[in-house]
Amino acid sequence: MTTALSQLQDHACLIVDGKDRPGIIADVTALVTRNGGNIVSLDQYTDDPSGGLFFQRVVFHRSEFSAARPDLESQLNDLLAPDGYRWSLTDQSVPKRMAILSSKSDHCLLDLLWRHRRSELPVTVPMVISNHPTSADDVRGFGVPFFHVPSAGADKSAAEDRIVKLLAGNVDFVVLARYMQILSGEFLNRVGVPVINIHHSFLPAFIGAGPYAKAKHRGVKLIGATAHYVTEDLDEGPIIEQDVVRVSHAETAADYARRGADVERQVLSRAVLWHAQDRVVLNGNQTIVF
Amino acid sequence: MTTALSQLQDHACLIVDGKDRPGIIADVTALVTRNGGNIVSLDQYTDDPSGGLFFQRVVFHRSEFSAARPDLESQLNDLLAPDGYRWSLTDQSVPKRMAILSSKSDHCLLDLLWRHRRSELPVTVPMVISNHPTSADDVRGFGVPFFHVPSAGADKSAAEDRIVKLLAGNVDFVVLARYMQILSGEFLNRVGVPVINIHHSFLPAFIGAGPYAKAKHRGVKLIGATAHYVTEDLDEGPIIEQDVVRVSHAETAADYARRGADVERQVLSRAVLWHAQDRVVLNGNQTIVF
Amino acid sequence: MTTALSQLQDHACLIVDGKDRPGIIADVTALVTRNGGNIVSLDQYTDDPSGGLFFQRVVFHRSEFSAARPDLESQLNDLLAPDGYRWSLTDQSVPKRMAILSSKSDHCLLDLLWRHRRSELPVTVPMVISNHPTSADDVRGFGVPFFHVPSAGADKSAAEDRIVKLLAGNVDFVVLARYMQILSGEFLNRVGVPVINIHHSFLPAFIGAGPYAKAKHRGVKLIGATAHYVTEDLDEGPIIEQDVVRVSHAETAADYARRGADVERQVLSRAVLWHAQDRVVLNGNQTIVF
Amino acid sequence: MTTALSQLQDHACLIVDGKDRPGIIADVTALVTRNGGNIVSLDQYTDDPSGGLFFQRVVFHRSEFSAARPDLESQLNDLLAPDGYRWSLTDQSVPKRMAILSSKSDHCLLDLLWRHRRSELPVTVPMVISNHPTSADDVRGFGVPFFHVPSAGADKSAAEDRIVKLLAGNVDFVVLARYMQILSGEFLNRVGVPVINIHHSFLPAFIGAGPYAKAKHRGVKLIGATAHYVTEDLDEGPIIEQDVVRVSHAETAADYARRGADVERQVLSRAVLWHAQDRVVLNGNQTIVF
Repeated sequence: MTTALSQLQDHACLIVDGKDRPGIIADVTALVTRNGGNIVSLDQYTDDPSGGLFFQRVVFHRSEFSAARPDLESQLNDLLAPDGYRWSLTDQSVPKRMAILSSKSDHCLLDLLWRHRRSELPVTVPMVISNHPTSADDVRGFGVPFFHVPSAGADKSAAEDRIVKLLAGNVDFVVLARYMQILSGEFLNRVGVPVINIHHSFLPAFIGAGPYAKAKHRGVKLIGATAHYVTEDLDEGPIIEQDVVRVSHAETAADYARRGADVERQVLSRAVLWHAQDRVVLNGNQTIVF
Repeated sequence: MTTALSQLQDHACLIVDGKDRPGIIADVTALVTRNGGNIVSLDQYTDDPSGGLFFQRVVFHRSEFSAARPDLESQLNDLLAPDGYRWSLTDQSVPKRMAILSSKSDHCLLDLLWRHRRSELPVTVPMVISNHPTSADDVRGFGVPFFHVPSAGADKSAAEDRIVKLLAGNVDFVVLARYMQILSGEFLNRVGVPVINIHHSFLPAFIGAGPYAKAKHRGVKLIGATAHYVTEDLDEGPIIEQDVVRVSHAETAADYARRGADVERQVLSRAVLWHAQDRVVLNGNQTIVF
Repeated sequence: MTTALSQLQDHACLIVDGKDRPGIIADVTALVTRNGGNIVSLDQYTDDPSGGLFFQRVVFHRSEFSAARPDLESQLNDLLAPDGYRWSLTDQSVPKRMAILSSKSDHCLLDLLWRHRRSELPVTVPMVISNHPTSADDVRGFGVPFFHVPSAGADKSAAEDRIVKLLAGNVDFVVLARYMQILSGEFLNRVGVPVINIHHSFLPAFIGAGPYAKAKHRGVKLIGATAHYVTEDLDEGPIIEQDVVRVSHAETAADYARRGADVERQVLSRAVLWHAQDRVVLNGNQTIVF
Repeated sequence: MTTALSQLQDHACLIVDGKDRPGIIADVTALVTRNGGNIVSLDQYTDDPSGGLFFQRVVFHRSEFSAARPDLESQLNDLLAPDGYRWSLTDQSVPKRMAILSSKSDHCLLDLLWRHRRSELPVTVPMVISNHPTSADDVRGFGVPFFHVPSAGADKSAAEDRIVKLLAGNVDFVVLARYMQILSGEFLNRVGVPVINIHHSFLPAFIGAGPYAKAKHRGVKLIGATAHYVTEDLDEGPIIEQDVVRVSHAETAADYARRGADVERQVLSRAVLWHAQDRVVLNGNQTIVF
């Protein structure tokens, strides 16, 4: 469900996770209510009702949330810290700052910028960084700054360094919109915010480069795309969203790439929306999408 | 999510709906916790956060639920009746009793019986009633009683009367598994339990008889099926589930019927499962499926 | 299957339809071969093998097709005219000229322009006409002329007259990319080329205005979109393509509109591609999509 | 498209494949027409229009086909053998003989038997062989012979030998309907007819045992099934059909197995239908499905 940011004034999102115990939902919802919060939506999940892990997402409205926030946080800490629960509280009216990294392919890039312009995504886009200059005019046409950081040669450290310096402190998450460079573990550490990638296959099938050619060679009847958080293990990060489309023997690997592009932009935009709405919670290497 | 009934010992499902007010979730979950219940899953929905309608489904585990039930019900009444909330409390370990009405087509009938046998549906099947004797052996092969109630002629009242007498007091809901007779309003009143139908089109397209022929004639590219609660207004009852399948110009209306049968049995089985699990809540002529 | 126009040099598409008779396929393919054509793809369909209607699409390569064309046409006429077959022969390397009419919503418009730019559609776009000026900069950014033809008031004849004058002789087909004005029968006659519309519902469900609100009110579980040729009977023209997406009770009619937009642009782009490739053949009010 | 066998009297299916050359379609269709055949459907595919491989499937009606067959075959040989084309001619009114091998899971087995009974599949079912006796009554209830061939222990050669002796000369193809034993290369050689398997994952993802558990562990958002021809390389044979269904984090691996069962039986039944209709042609390790 998408909602204009203006309608989210004084809405907060509370995420709690930790070891399940009786009464945790009642305690959290009572705390919210006691502090004048009106619960708009609540989702919870327990991976094992007998002593498993507990995950909860509560969106609530509280007049003058900003003023009430410090006190709420203090009470939440008192309630949740003793039992070792992790929790986060975000102001839903504050859009997340999203940087996009792209290469030559523009289908995912333009789709995100266009969805942002029509208010589908609760984000701001402070910058697009690309190792190719081809999309500069399009990006700037959307009123978004564009930085060209070439990435030729075997040693990517200088390019990565420039990118980190552009991103540092300016963004809340990064989207790799068909960015065709492998990022180092050091880069991920230095960036320090979540990085979302779109892989052009139905992972874990066709890991690595050239998945459409591999799919054609194997003779599969469906091709897909996978949006996932980036970790140091290439193509192994937690999956946020996937989808597929039917192909036929009469189509070539180039056709697969064109048809797959439609799935990629669709899957990536859903993953970005859900991340921006604090709907995605990690459970080990799996995601819970509330 | 399906779960074996044996695993649902001492599990209860509480459905609450009424006018939304701050604190209602906290009050209900606190009541459950105070009474020794451990919440296994919780879903809620508000159709308008400012003073709309509120719907909640809570599944909880409570040791010796049967013994605790009267006291729980009394407390729920004290909490919810003053504000005009409707509520129901069901024992998840007690399967609902499902009667099936069918005609000559057996795809939905056999699919339900087979899913029941492999423990996919938390129901018992006290009887199958059909206006044709063709499926008698198959039904009895599943260990289910079969009653043949012919329905020839314009006046269906005698047949309906026989069916009501078979059902009365013996079933919790009725499934029309491609039962090709229109049931009267009087019948629905006398039966007094929910009746679920499977319509062989994507309602509201192709209302009435012969939907596959109509679909072929109109040249649609997808055909579908709709499971809905039966009301006096034919094909207008609340929709529980729908799905579609792609067809091509090269297929005939008879092909549509064969391909549609796969969608029908799939859609109906999902609707039956969700109804049996108390997941479907009415909001006017719409359904909320938790 | 999409193919770059440069690869379609000397490729022709022959469409034949009429009353089926033994040997028609052999006669047509032999004629093509005798004239130096190498068949690249062949599709045929008979709606009734005993004396029904016959439809055939043959794509073939013939060196120096332009030079050979008059002679080929003469032979085709000798073969097909006596039996009353209709036929058309098009040069696949010549892109069709597509005009787009739009209003305020830009999702279908921009998607078509973007697909054209990345060579997915074998068309040229000589103009975009809109009754709102909002998309002018975007359209011109794609290097496409933009004409603003306001359409206020009850009498649309002046606006329609201006549009006809812009289109006359300049386009091979027209796409209504969420153009929110009803076109008169007189307009359709004067334009004289095929007009493709995208309707924001799964026709024939929710005919007319406001289909997403109607879908929300009826409580359907899937929403869809339909691309069809425009006829004088509103929402009744031959359907080219349809698709759907699942929605939930938790989404509003505004959410449906946003999610439906994704289906609309997808469905419309497929219909446009197939039309531009001469894949769509009319069989009464139905389409055959080869 | 399914068609009752009675309607397929005097219908033949001709499959031709080999190196593409100009005029091959015209030559084949002219031969059919010259011999009194009326072409009902024609599909062709060339994997590369310049000198690639050519595949053609022609279904035609010829009165008294059986009588005309030897002469037709002789002419086809004269036309096609010199250029090294492979071809086969089958009588569409003669159902293929299909054996089913199964284990404890009955969803694929019963679905095939039920589809056969309602005339959806143009096959006969001379036998079901299982390494478990559990399905015996169900199978015999469909009027089909059931043979129990236990397969315990590490050495499967005795069991395989018994199975080969049951199948030899009696069947045209074999379906592994969730048969949980790995068949040896020697078995495949001795059986000498095509063997179709249903794998419970979207191959090549999750090759090997326990794919649903693997899918749960990896956190994928869709699960699938794959029908493929069996070769000596486990899970590597040519794919005939695949499909997927969406799953959520709230479902367990056991839920995946139950939901996947619906996809498995659907995918397998489509693959069996297409194989029985001679629609599946091998192109190396890929299939062309006409």
